[in-house]
Amino acid sequence: MKRIGILGGGQLGRMLLQAAANYPVYTMVLEKGTDAPAALLCDEFTNGDIRNFDSVLMFGRKADVITIEIENVNIEALFQLQQEGKTIIPRPEVLQIIRDKGLQKQFYQENNIPTAPFVLTERASELNNYIDFLPAAHKLRTGGYDGKGVAIITNQTQLNQGFDAPSVLEKGVAIAKEIAVTVACNNDGDLVIYPAVEMVFDPQYNLVDYQIAPAQITAEQAATAAGIAVQVVKAFNSAGIFAIEMFLDKNGAILVNETAPRTHNSGHQSIEANYTSQFEMQLRLLLDLPLGNPELREPALMWNIIGAPDVNGTFTLSGLEETLAIPNTYLHLYGKTSTKPGRKLGHLTLLGPPHETVRWIQHIKQLVVTKPA
Amino acid sequence: MKRIGILGGGQLGRMLLQAAANYPVYTMVLEKGTDAPAALLCDEFTNGDIRNFDSVLMFGRKADVITIEIENVNIEALFQLQQEGKTIIPRPEVLQIIRDKGLQKQFYQENNIPTAPFVLTERASELNNYIDFLPAAHKLRTGGYDGKGVAIITNQTQLNQGFDAPSVLEKGVAIAKEIAVTVACNNDGDLVIYPAVEMVFDPQYNLVDYQIAPAQITAEQAATAAGIAVQVVKAFNSAGIFAIEMFLDKNGAILVNETAPRTHNSGHQSIEANYTSQFEMQLRLLLDLPLGNPELREPALMWNIIGAPDVNGTFTLSGLEETLAIPNTYLHLYGKTSTKPGRKLGHLTLLGPPHETVRWIQHIKQLVVTKPA
Repeated sequence: MKRIGILGGGQLGRMLLQAAANYPVYTMVLEKGTDAPAALLCDEFTNGDIRNFDSVLMFGRKADVITIEIENVNIEALFQLQQEGKTIIPRPEVLQIIRDKGLQKQFYQENNIPTAPFVLTERASELNNYIDFLPAAHKLRTGGYDGKGVAIITNQTQLNQGFDAPSVLEKGVAIAKEIAVTVACNNDGDLVIYPAVEMVFDPQYNLVDYQIAPAQITAEQAATAAGIAVQVVKAFNSAGIFAIEMFLDKNGAILVNETAPRTHNSGHQSIEANYTSQFEMQLRLLLDLPLGNPELREPALMWNIIGAPDVNGTFTLSGLEETLAIPNTYLHLYGKTSTKPGRKLGHLTLLGPPHETVRWIQHIKQLVVTKPA
Repeated sequence: MKRIGILGGGQLGRMLLQAAANYPVYTMVLEKGTDAPAALLCDEFTNGDIRNFDSVLMFGRKADVITIEIENVNIEALFQLQQEGKTIIPRPEVLQIIRDKGLQKQFYQENNIPTAPFVLTERASELNNYIDFLPAAHKLRTGGYDGKGVAIITNQTQLNQGFDAPSVLEKGVAIAKEIAVTVACNNDGDLVIYPAVEMVFDPQYNLVDYQIAPAQITAEQAATAAGIAVQVVKAFNSAGIFAIEMFLDKNGAILVNETAPRTHNSGHQSIEANYTSQFEMQLRLLLDLPLGNPELREPALMWNIIGAPDVNGTFTLSGLEETLAIPNTYLHLYGKTSTKPGRKLGHLTLLGPPHETVRWIQHIKQLVVTKPA
């Protein structure tokens, strides 16, 4: 039985393990602490730091295939494991490019992948040279996540909000919609492409608030988005599952925002709404089994259950009973025992057309709230 | 968080736990040995005998709600737990009736539920009094399962094959089809009814070979079957999930064969083919959450992966790669580490209309074979 090593023990690992329970596979997870969402469901849990060279190396040596559920892992250890003959999905080279927003933007540019214009900066003082770039986003090249490490600079008076560290200054896009396409690529280079989804962001936390599948865009836009996503994955030249996040701008152009070289929040609806969930797809490619069918079975909305701004520590969720009385509503809690403001605690998927599900979700948002336990 | 105690650690428990990972629930399993299919995925595993009074009592006292995944449990302990205020789903009275095929037949008779004519016998010698009943099935009242404890007596010369122990002699039915309807009932008595499925049996093992959803019967027959299933569950007067197995005879009459007061092999397609799987449905009623939608999303075929007649012990399965290349094919292995002839090791579900899936499954049966490891 193949031994899969998963770096990271969060909800993405947990949902991968739920799919893995159906397959002939031995699963191993590396994560700090023992109450990680993925700890319970794996065959073997190792308490250790995914950012530590030795921890990752020792862990990886016990596995046949190593994958990630978060980018923030020790890449040097992955290169070492690759040299020792282990299969790493995605390739560590991909992680190296993606983890550095500067390298990632250069990669798109070099591969003729449409993306917003940008410049690289080393110090905050350089921003004065790029007044013509405003409005723009100044993003730390490394270490930012979920909206942290990003400063929106709309005019000259806000230049002081820029980062005094290696960053990318990206020209603002007049965004009509944010969309994402998931692509899976196996070791033979075969690709399957999920239909584009549309993300609606929570302005407070800059996290996905809810997401609609399929994206409400024209067939031509959907085809263009799929084509760009394939172009990105081919350029990375790596097996894996990739979520390519894109902007549809007000002129109808599609620009790549960023790529997640793993399962992604924008694909959670696939568990119920697509023929093959992104997690089962990942598992199939890790096991060198044929890729599944990415097609949508029916339209869906996915909403993140996020820790309330005023609750920390142990919690309960209100409103589950009323919510689950709504037809074709699916609960996914991640087994987290404590909350903090903005923490992803779970998600809900509703099957149905957007004119129904969007109305339901406005109702659900009033019901499902984290409360102190 | 509610604590659910599951008596039995087989595949039904395992699939319940896969659904439970999404819900706010603490799961406990009681089973002998530690490599049971459900052992890995529960929050707390107790190594003990589900037929032992003390084991079940001690285990049940730690839970808020107790359920079963096999009927062969210590019912006396469940009555004791019920007296102590625990919720038992289904009620122990139901298990008592169902476990004794004689009581079960009498129960149908008393409740005017159509079932094949029968007589109760104590000794093999009594069979001589029922020549006019032949052809008939002689079934041990207790202890039989999966075709064991059943003798088919077609003529007088076979009377010596009957059991010299309390048994039911059931008049043979000219079976056109075997069908099953799953009904879920919550603590308030609300019912939901799954569309009937059709079972095709393996003649060698008398296990379900494959199963088709929906059953290929007329709308009138489907409505009659649903009505009878509801009648059965109302008569049991218990919360729970019930699979009512029925015969459609050659005259078009529908007769109840037997009832499983739990999730059942005939409902495995529901994981992918219905809006709410039988396991998620069971979980919702255990947690007093609203019942889900039992409707079929699209037609499906479910095939049991069964240990080959000539293989015992550790095993591998051939043909998985070719099988998973077939569109919309879903693998469910139960995590069993050893096989024996006729042992259920997993199942495959194929989505699609029967004229396609039945052809595929004939092909798959040649591919997916247990081999010694």
